[in-house]
Amino acid sequence: MGQDTISRLGEVLGPSGLLVGTDITERYSRDWSGDYHCAPSAVLRPSTVDEVAGALRICRDAGLSVIPQGGHTGLVGGGTPDCAAQLVLSLERLNRIRAIDPLGMTMTVEAGCILQDVKDAAAAQGVLFPLALGAQGSCQIGGNIATNAGGLNVLRYGMMRRSVLGLEVVLPDGRILSDLRALHKNNTGLDLKQLFVGTEGTLGVITAATLRLYPQPKHIETVWLCCNSVDRVMDLYALFQHEAGDFLSAFELITAPCLELAFELDDHQSISKETAQYPAHALVEISSSGGPDLKEWVEDLIAVAFERDLAADGFMAQSDTQAKSFWRIRELMVEAQQRRGLHLRSDVSVPISSMAPFIAKVTEVLSAELPGLNVLSYGHVGDGNVHVNALPPEGLTGSSFQPYLPLLVEKLNEVVDSFDGSISAEHGIGLSKRAALDSRLQGPQRELVRAVKQLLDPTDCLAPGRILVP
Amino acid sequence: MGQDTISRLGEVLGPSGLLVGTDITERYSRDWSGDYHCAPSAVLRPSTVDEVAGALRICRDAGLSVIPQGGHTGLVGGGTPDCAAQLVLSLERLNRIRAIDPLGMTMTVEAGCILQDVKDAAAAQGVLFPLALGAQGSCQIGGNIATNAGGLNVLRYGMMRRSVLGLEVVLPDGRILSDLRALHKNNTGLDLKQLFVGTEGTLGVITAATLRLYPQPKHIETVWLCCNSVDRVMDLYALFQHEAGDFLSAFELITAPCLELAFELDDHQSISKETAQYPAHALVEISSSGGPDLKEWVEDLIAVAFERDLAADGFMAQSDTQAKSFWRIRELMVEAQQRRGLHLRSDVSVPISSMAPFIAKVTEVLSAELPGLNVLSYGHVGDGNVHVNALPPEGLTGSSFQPYLPLLVEKLNEVVDSFDGSISAEHGIGLSKRAALDSRLQGPQRELVRAVKQLLDPTDCLAPGRILVP
Repeated sequence: MGQDTISRLGEVLGPSGLLVGTDITERYSRDWSGDYHCAPSAVLRPSTVDEVAGALRICRDAGLSVIPQGGHTGLVGGGTPDCAAQLVLSLERLNRIRAIDPLGMTMTVEAGCILQDVKDAAAAQGVLFPLALGAQGSCQIGGNIATNAGGLNVLRYGMMRRSVLGLEVVLPDGRILSDLRALHKNNTGLDLKQLFVGTEGTLGVITAATLRLYPQPKHIETVWLCCNSVDRVMDLYALFQHEAGDFLSAFELITAPCLELAFELDDHQSISKETAQYPAHALVEISSSGGPDLKEWVEDLIAVAFERDLAADGFMAQSDTQAKSFWRIRELMVEAQQRRGLHLRSDVSVPISSMAPFIAKVTEVLSAELPGLNVLSYGHVGDGNVHVNALPPEGLTGSSFQPYLPLLVEKLNEVVDSFDGSISAEHGIGLSKRAALDSRLQGPQRELVRAVKQLLDPTDCLAPGRILVP
Repeated sequence: MGQDTISRLGEVLGPSGLLVGTDITERYSRDWSGDYHCAPSAVLRPSTVDEVAGALRICRDAGLSVIPQGGHTGLVGGGTPDCAAQLVLSLERLNRIRAIDPLGMTMTVEAGCILQDVKDAAAAQGVLFPLALGAQGSCQIGGNIATNAGGLNVLRYGMMRRSVLGLEVVLPDGRILSDLRALHKNNTGLDLKQLFVGTEGTLGVITAATLRLYPQPKHIETVWLCCNSVDRVMDLYALFQHEAGDFLSAFELITAPCLELAFELDDHQSISKETAQYPAHALVEISSSGGPDLKEWVEDLIAVAFERDLAADGFMAQSDTQAKSFWRIRELMVEAQQRRGLHLRSDVSVPISSMAPFIAKVTEVLSAELPGLNVLSYGHVGDGNVHVNALPPEGLTGSSFQPYLPLLVEKLNEVVDSFDGSISAEHGIGLSKRAALDSRLQGPQRELVRAVKQLLDPTDCLAPGRILVP
């Protein structure tokens, strides 16, 4: 990058808007996955949409590649450079909450707002912004939109796409596309914002969004149920789906090996250690944002589950604190995997009615491929989304496990294909899944996806190599 | 159209797949609006996706324009020819229900399925397909998707877009784009199906879809409340939104002139004629697909509404029959307008919190423009969607009213703009709103919409002149 370009960028972005050399701290170089590490040649930190547009024009003219970056919490290498010539465009200074309308149930926020701050601002007005993720204390709303984030509340509120009413986007050539009207219905042909939701910054840089808000939950019942098999958990799901209907706000599957991992980190949990004897567990949330109290009704429903032998043991949270402790176990099992170092991670979906046979099949296939592998299946099975992860067999760690990963992923993806599933339910594609995605696209799909990229970014200056194989 | 093209189409489509000359009945020439009438040069009636692809290739090679057509229930001239050289591509024979999975909450249907048949097939399996429209007995699911239909249940279930999990589409050049996987989560970059939802057949022909299903409502309470102003109706909305939260499945505003019209057609309604003395009414549905009964709780909530002087009178349906009779009034007021002949129709949205001032302003502006105009405002105000219609002043009917319409529409749209609203909340653009839409697009929006059309349909053979000004 020439000195001339640096000074032009400096003019547009101001002194705190451009980092080069040793001013570039470590955080701009990696995401949470830890799978990728590369320092950018510069970090652009615009504070207005016009600065984003100005900086992008300069970069395009200079033939530079720009990687839009949110809160660094991605898991597929989408938001960090993969070669030192790339620049990072961080949205962190575009972090104003522009408007909240609690009656109209909308709010308009800039891309760099931290998800937790968005949720808190809504809550302060008595309304709910529902997206809920482990990373919510540091991920940014622009990144949530660019990756069409999922999380714990998808069953009730859908993926991020459903909550986006309007977007402000800077196109790769610096043109600004803005429609932030706070409208719940607006049916005027091609819905341009859909081009940018989930495309990981490859087609434009999201700078602001108008979001849909919801009534706050008033009654929440949280239940932990222990089952004798994944099949029984899915039967339980069928019961809850039929009886609780749209009160069902979360239905998480946790298999025994996951629970054992969580207990490794902390065994003073509200769920006794003995529960790990049961092979599969359901963490269920039933909630409503109005109407009568649900407690007695949920107790009756659980009684039905026991009568029908769907659950063998269980706990109903008697307080907010206890409900939080149930969810804490789910967080702990993720943390425990992270601490084990390199392991197989996945994020796949299948039709909900295939969940139990899929988990059985994939466990069998992976275990046959590498005996001793500790397969951990858990996830948002009410959405058909399961994370099939695996810890290496005893004695095989880090670099000695690495060579097995590509084949394990391939085998896993083949099982997903055989169940008509998706190799990415919610984490996106980024760098890590682009080859697997490419080989699964039908001809016309691949052509159309590439043609849209070519249309919007003919010089491939924005997030090159993300989603699409170069 | 040459004899050679006709015989090639005949070969692909078979004897019952192609209508020409006097075999083309009236129904292919007009939609429900009655605003447009033009017979096509031929009607293509394919019965498989491959026939659709084959026919489109022949038409493109011959330089013919094709108008995809569903159940003829559109209101903006999108689905009928506007010049006699155009062909109609009717999806009516693609009407198989391919699969239903009540546990997985999905179903796969062909585009020509009648909406009511889709709803009935879901109901037979104990699940709900929620889209509900006046036209549901004749509109087709492909048309519902191509127009991103709205209707009476948007408040709870969203527009059609939200219920589309997968699509099979034939592109203008005959390529088939198919992804009908029954997945609730699938996050793999550009979501191609979004290009075809709401674009009224301009980018491709939808031939099948995988739809999202929902639990069936178990408890439904329907309430008619009479208020002293539109402001009070919106205060009532704020109360219900806050207290009933996601139980609120419909909140319709009906102003007094609409009610009078309904009584004109049939005054033996369950709502007494005297209620028309109140200037504004709310038709509210509160429902749940599980959990405890809602009746007592709704009674208590209505008592609060009376205590706070938000409602002056009201009726709570004591039976399904009575609930249906409330909804029948809403249908009658639409029928009554239709019988009056030519009148001003609109379908606009504004931020929900601007609804009352918007209705006051637009009524004032239209009445000033043409004194004696009978302005009727009603709609799904819980979605921010209102139909501001108007009957001509006494003595001004049909052709003598016609010359006033363009200016009235322009004035109406200007008020919509001043409230940051949309000129099409749910009916779409078609032929009738394309000029109004075009003048409202920002430069980059217009460029991008046209570039996507050019990309997918470079010869403009599919639904030409719909949405986009030629």
